[in-house]
Amino acid sequence: MTDCIIIGSGLAGISAGLTLQANGKSFIMLGRKDLSEKISKAEKIHNYPGLSDITGQAFVSALQNQLNEAQITVTEKRAMGVYALGDKFGVATQEGDYYEGKTVIFALGVESVKAIKGETEFLGRGVSYCATCDGFLYKGKTIAVLCTSKRLEYEILHLADFAQTLYLIPMYKPVEIERDNIRILQKMPVEIRGENRVESLVFSAPPAEDMQKELAIDGVFVLRESASPAVLMAGLQTENGHIVVDKAMQTNISGCFSAGDCTGRPYQYAKAVGEGNISAHSVCEYLTKISKK
Amino acid sequence: MTDCIIIGSGLAGISAGLTLQANGKSFIMLGRKDLSEKISKAEKIHNYPGLSDITGQAFVSALQNQLNEAQITVTEKRAMGVYALGDKFGVATQEGDYYEGKTVIFALGVESVKAIKGETEFLGRGVSYCATCDGFLYKGKTIAVLCTSKRLEYEILHLADFAQTLYLIPMYKPVEIERDNIRILQKMPVEIRGENRVESLVFSAPPAEDMQKELAIDGVFVLRESASPAVLMAGLQTENGHIVVDKAMQTNISGCFSAGDCTGRPYQYAKAVGEGNISAHSVCEYLTKISKK
Repeated sequence: MTDCIIIGSGLAGISAGLTLQANGKSFIMLGRKDLSEKISKAEKIHNYPGLSDITGQAFVSALQNQLNEAQITVTEKRAMGVYALGDKFGVATQEGDYYEGKTVIFALGVESVKAIKGETEFLGRGVSYCATCDGFLYKGKTIAVLCTSKRLEYEILHLADFAQTLYLIPMYKPVEIERDNIRILQKMPVEIRGENRVESLVFSAPPAEDMQKELAIDGVFVLRESASPAVLMAGLQTENGHIVVDKAMQTNISGCFSAGDCTGRPYQYAKAVGEGNISAHSVCEYLTKISKK
Repeated sequence: MTDCIIIGSGLAGISAGLTLQANGKSFIMLGRKDLSEKISKAEKIHNYPGLSDITGQAFVSALQNQLNEAQITVTEKRAMGVYALGDKFGVATQEGDYYEGKTVIFALGVESVKAIKGETEFLGRGVSYCATCDGFLYKGKTIAVLCTSKRLEYEILHLADFAQTLYLIPMYKPVEIERDNIRILQKMPVEIRGENRVESLVFSAPPAEDMQKELAIDGVFVLRESASPAVLMAGLQTENGHIVVDKAMQTNISGCFSAGDCTGRPYQYAKAVGEGNISAHSVCEYLTKISKK
């Protein structure tokens, strides 16, 4: 079994990976080949020691080279569920894979922390994170899709194959998707509402001229690169969406660590790099401890 | 008055400086032109994200260029005392200068945390950190000098001008100092001993064939790039020599922050960079808070 599963390929995950590698530990890094949308879209980075005024693209290239040289590969999968199984952890991905590791590091980034009111409450009752898993349930129905990344547009198209009407609320640019049954709304909803299950999406103001503030729907798909921490792992302590960690980057669950933007502000590369490093050292200490038992 | 005085020019101090600069804050960085002995002497650095297998020298050059581009200058002075003066801090240097700032960041590195038994106890009673200040007190006497850096050899020569016999215990290489009254001992003492003031230096075994385990002396000079934190600032909370900080890098003294190796393990560049960044953000927050009063 691998020593550690790192969830995330941004700077926190990379820093953790490089340090685990330097310490001879095995690990799987779940993430994306372009590593991080946040970094790759950064115009210029001014305050990362060692790299003067680098562009996000150049930074991503440098990191990709470094990972190649260190023989670290990024496994392009998205974690959907993390399970504490006594002395190990199980990680299920949206792609249907399953991994086990002795420890886990959440390096999810900050995108995942912003949940909409009602989202967690209605999960499994009209709210879904997985187009592949739940799309067929909405055949002929009206759904809303909140999507944070252009890379996930293929999932929107998959949903449009089933739904009669699909309201797309994109959180990325440019949106190049076109289908007769897709209507794009450029306004973020403030709440998911319903009795026993999802019935409507509420906006602070009408999202279009011919619409009301409340939009009747049968379901909401929230497509993010990573699920929110509390949804990803039952029992994981969070505060305002951020994963609660101590100074050793230990979460409230033994063997489970976290680093980077998902643990809180400042949302900075330097902080992510530092926390990733510390989390890897904590993983090494933890592995030594459990090996002595 | 400057917004912040950063004590230290290693990666924690540099990271703090770059981020303060990016936030439009003023600061003075006390340190050394070659930035950090630890970095410059590193053979290869394997796990710093963004720079693959870089040598310490190349890392220092990259950082120096980055500081130049950001128009950040390093003030080549060594802090000797830091004083909390109500709503500001005073910093006195070994070179006789005095600076005031609204906040202070201790980024001292790890060298300063290792104190010898008896060192703090006999400070001012035979233990001194300042050759220039106290050298003349030992005219014709026998002294020991513990020195951590080749860069401070000029202070040893200054002391040799006064002392009859000077036992030099160097913690650096190569030692190229030669004087008739200097004798080099390649062994670290374990304790400074005495009744009311320093009387002897104790080793775990005789430091030379013609010597005993206990060496009679009149005084001990400890020449470090930076004084130990507890000595530098009265009332600063430390634990095993490390400065105690919370997750915002705040020490027990309001307006006083710390980052990098001096706050504890892991002694890693990535950690120092992360903590430096966080400390700078905390300084900004603190400055906003006090400006509203």
